[in-house]
Amino acid sequence: MTDMGNLYLALMHYPVQNRKGQQVGSAVTNLDLHDLARAGRTFGVRAVYIVTPYGDQVQLVSELIAHWTEGVGSRTNPDRKEALQLLRVVDSWDQVLEDVQGETNHVTPVTVATSAGIREHAVDIKQMQMSLEQGMPHVLVFGTAWGLTREFMDSCDMCLFPIQGAGSYNHLPVRSAVSIYLDRINGCM
Amino acid sequence: MTDMGNLYLALMHYPVQNRKGQQVGSAVTNLDLHDLARAGRTFGVRAVYIVTPYGDQVQLVSELIAHWTEGVGSRTNPDRKEALQLLRVVDSWDQVLEDVQGETNHVTPVTVATSAGIREHAVDIKQMQMSLEQGMPHVLVFGTAWGLTREFMDSCDMCLFPIQGAGSYNHLPVRSAVSIYLDRINGCM
Repeated sequence: MTDMGNLYLALMHYPVQNRKGQQVGSAVTNLDLHDLARAGRTFGVRAVYIVTPYGDQVQLVSELIAHWTEGVGSRTNPDRKEALQLLRVVDSWDQVLEDVQGETNHVTPVTVATSAGIREHAVDIKQMQMSLEQGMPHVLVFGTAWGLTREFMDSCDMCLFPIQGAGSYNHLPVRSAVSIYLDRINGCM
Repeated sequence: MTDMGNLYLALMHYPVQNRKGQQVGSAVTNLDLHDLARAGRTFGVRAVYIVTPYGDQVQLVSELIAHWTEGVGSRTNPDRKEALQLLRVVDSWDQVLEDVQGETNHVTPVTVATSAGIREHAVDIKQMQMSLEQGMPHVLVFGTAWGLTREFMDSCDMCLFPIQGAGSYNHLPVRSAVSIYLDRINGCM
């Protein structure tokens, strides 16, 4: 069982690709917030960043988080509160890095991209676990829409090997991919 | 890698429990349909049953499936069509069993419940894989809301050991649980 106390998740809504491979911004999906928070809480990650540059989406996410962590939802469903307390909405990737540095004595985190496609020099789960065990903060990054852009992935320190199923079909929901990667890093136990 | 060609999934909206442990029927969540279909397609399951006794919900699910498999959605997003073709909406658990028997030469499938709680005689993934390798059809059953009722679980042939994270928090979304179990049965590769 790998300790994920130094692991942060980031769900990017910009920059991501549309189905034609063009760089776009995507809209926030409410259920992503709940699913990433609940999976993150289950496996003990430190925090989950929701990244969107759009002011109205930042506002919406802030209100949703407040409903479940301070409002009516926090009283009717304390388990949900415990999970959604992990969420942090920010307007850019730079904000993610700054925020992590702000609570880790200015350590620059190791950034780990994910992709449904096979990339050169992708690392496997064993390497990811070993890297986490060094004690450095890590940010595991997921793209919405048709995934992270090539430029963004190139800017990360490493990229995780894709999840492969029974054949060539590789269109897992981001909610599934997050859950599976966390379970694998934890040791599939 | 375990062949899942004999594995069916069933997502139950009745009978399930509410947070007080009372037996209730739950409403269908649109994203469950997409996520279970996409995860099921990725790992090669045979079909995914959506079980609800409510006529309006059966109608709604039928229309959603038709949109993605025959309507506009099937042309704009063929990958989604490929996944949602796995979905079958039925009004009862008995219908699931009948339908499976109808396409497996009247073989009664092995029924496998899932639960977030530890149950006596729960089987682990290795036992599940070995059972699948015998070639019999299996139905892996998931509950919405607060999970399957005790009576329903008792009626199944076996129950899978729960997914355990880093601590005692055990409130994974059903979408996460399905994804993780399929990845584990496949071998976490």
